[in-house]
Amino acid sequence: HSIVLLPGDGIGPEIVEQARLVLVAIADRFGHEFTFSSHQIGGIAIDETGDPLPQATVDACRSASAILLGAVGGPKWDDPSAKTRPEAGLLRIRKELGLFANLRPIKLFDQLADASPLRADIVRGTDILFFRELTGGIYFGESGSSGEGEDETAYQSMTYSRREVKRIVRMAATAARGRSNRLTSVDKANVLEPSRLWRRVAAEVMAEEFPDVNYDVVLVDSMAMHLINRPADFDVVVTGNMFGDILTDEASMLPGSLGMLPSASLGESGPGLYEPIHGSAPDIAGKGIANPLATILAAAMMLRHSLSLNDEADLIEAAVAGVLADGLRTSDLARGDSDSAIGTEAMGAAVVAKIA
Amino acid sequence: HSIVLLPGDGIGPEIVEQARLVLVAIADRFGHEFTFSSHQIGGIAIDETGDPLPQATVDACRSASAILLGAVGGPKWDDPSAKTRPEAGLLRIRKELGLFANLRPIKLFDQLADASPLRADIVRGTDILFFRELTGGIYFGESGSSGEGEDETAYQSMTYSRREVKRIVRMAATAARGRSNRLTSVDKANVLEPSRLWRRVAAEVMAEEFPDVNYDVVLVDSMAMHLINRPADFDVVVTGNMFGDILTDEASMLPGSLGMLPSASLGESGPGLYEPIHGSAPDIAGKGIANPLATILAAAMMLRHSLSLNDEADLIEAAVAGVLADGLRTSDLARGDSDSAIGTEAMGAAVVAKIA
Ligand SMILES: CC(C)[C@H](C(=O)O)[C@@H](O)C(=O)O
Ligand SMILES: CC(C)[C@H](C(=O)O)[C@@H](O)C(=O)O
Repeated sequence: HSIVLLPGDGIGPEIVEQARLVLVAIADRFGHEFTFSSHQIGGIAIDETGDPLPQATVDACRSASAILLGAVGGPKWDDPSAKTRPEAGLLRIRKELGLFANLRPIKLFDQLADASPLRADIVRGTDILFFRELTGGIYFGESGSSGEGEDETAYQSMTYSRREVKRIVRMAATAARGRSNRLTSVDKANVLEPSRLWRRVAAEVMAEEFPDVNYDVVLVDSMAMHLINRPADFDVVVTGNMFGDILTDEASMLPGSLGMLPSASLGESGPGLYEPIHGSAPDIAGKGIANPLATILAAAMMLRHSLSLNDEADLIEAAVAGVLADGLRTSDLARGDSDSAIGTEAMGAAVVAKIA
Repeated sequence: HSIVLLPGDGIGPEIVEQARLVLVAIADRFGHEFTFSSHQIGGIAIDETGDPLPQATVDACRSASAILLGAVGGPKWDDPSAKTRPEAGLLRIRKELGLFANLRPIKLFDQLADASPLRADIVRGTDILFFRELTGGIYFGESGSSGEGEDETAYQSMTYSRREVKRIVRMAATAARGRSNRLTSVDKANVLEPSRLWRRVAAEVMAEEFPDVNYDVVLVDSMAMHLINRPADFDVVVTGNMFGDILTDEASMLPGSLGMLPSASLGESGPGLYEPIHGSAPDIAGKGIANPLATILAAAMMLRHSLSLNDEADLIEAAVAGVLADGLRTSDLARGDSDSAIGTEAMGAAVVAKIA
């Protein structure tokens, strides 16, 4: 199994290194062979090659079994008038590899239950699997500008095709069958033309291919409310790229620990891309205090979804639950008690120790 | 002062009637003369005229001092293939009257503090004033469809001009000066061309005209997170139409009582439009149990912003706080104790009694 590492910017290199060590421990224990190669993406790639996604990176990713990404971006590359930015690398790799489905599990960790900003009685039982469409919608729509002075105008178009809606709804509905058999589709069909197509096509797919799955639709503004006042009512949720960006980030607050949440981006075939959902955290980069657990959990998703190594994935997840149960906390999890917090390497080593 | 009432659909007529009675009580007590006329909008207007915004309604609104709206929409008009829908009436009245700024105050009511789904230590002190751009962006962008079969595609374009950004940022920054002098602009400038224009123009306006106002920018996905884990850190927030729709609805959960939140939609000049932020609640329409307080508070905003009757507005708000302090609750506020809840008319009458 050849695994491409894309450490990226900020805390990316630190957290990816800990996930790599966990994968090495898995390989040792189960007798697998993982080969790792590291490539550039994001701001560091802009600095060194002028391109946030150099061709060498794309080539390496294409021939890999799976890809593990840290994070991209930072204030250094934030100039709004810059020709290119780190995020462009992320958007392009998604598109180049056809990674049209972004899976984001949102599940409370019992060990961190009191960390949620929501009242315990509201958040208890929350276990949502989001499917965010990742290679279409307004993110990749035609854009441009026109006019001068007060009339200077910029635009970008939200676009969805029947094909794009079908494949993500199918993937989400299939996942729902393996869970509580409930799927919620989120759109803004009362205002947007592409949402009306989305709603129509999703209803067709569900009626024709998944009549056994409980299906409903919710407007994006309502969903933003429901995630706060009745999050435990949802199972699998499918939505477009932009709405998915906003709603999954909103939902990521519920477990009270952004540093614990992984994500997977999958296509029809080919390598999947796995990453923590948090960003590059430039303010703490290089300090050795970043929480590596989300990236380690992303590595577990990778074993499960791209390498079909389910036992190995389960073991990583159990090891993470184990270190939390032992009371180990990085500073982001320590909640007012940051003196006792451990660093990035110590947390990685603790997970490795559980596995070995 | 001539006030146009647009009761609309669902619970709209019931709650607008209570707000009207409160305005009559204010007129009596202060010796004002308010004249009321009622017009059609939304689903009921479709049923009776085929148009969710009949010309007679537009004409009446144009010559009014201010407009009080209930709510529009309902399952009866929800067919996604329908030619027109109730919401189209709402979108058109905003556009016809040039109501480019939607003000949504999000403030905790002390009397309802335990109703928030957020932990008390997180939500305490939340007092945000949102300015949502209301007549531009993707809501009013060019839309259409093309292709057939799997290639059937629909699009809608997000568009912003320098002029549109300037006027809403100015209005929000001016409001910030009258509050804690802090303004946050929310965009998605790392992905969207119109957000990049928004960010550039907003920065110019702030630097040139409001150098005294503390100003920062936040990405929409980050803002969706901050509203949950540190809502009390924000003062005035300005954003585009779609992001504003989602974020203000998310934020509306924080006080724990959707039935308490009013909004105002204002233009450069001319009548403002005032409404509760909740919807038409078709499930409880006609039952006499809807909470009229958000509409009553919208009437207070109307007195303040369109009629310059500040003392009168203050009195309505004090009366609402008073009935809550007396322990009166409609069923949406009763939290598990709905037997003691009072109905729409009783709640309206209690507010009237405080005023008289
Ligand atoms: C960095 C940015 C382009 C990206 C997105 O909006 O998709 C990020 O927010 C994410 O959700 O992965
Ligand atoms: C009814 C709908 C068109 C409207 C919107 O999205 O603007 C509503 O959600 C609102 O926020 O007033």
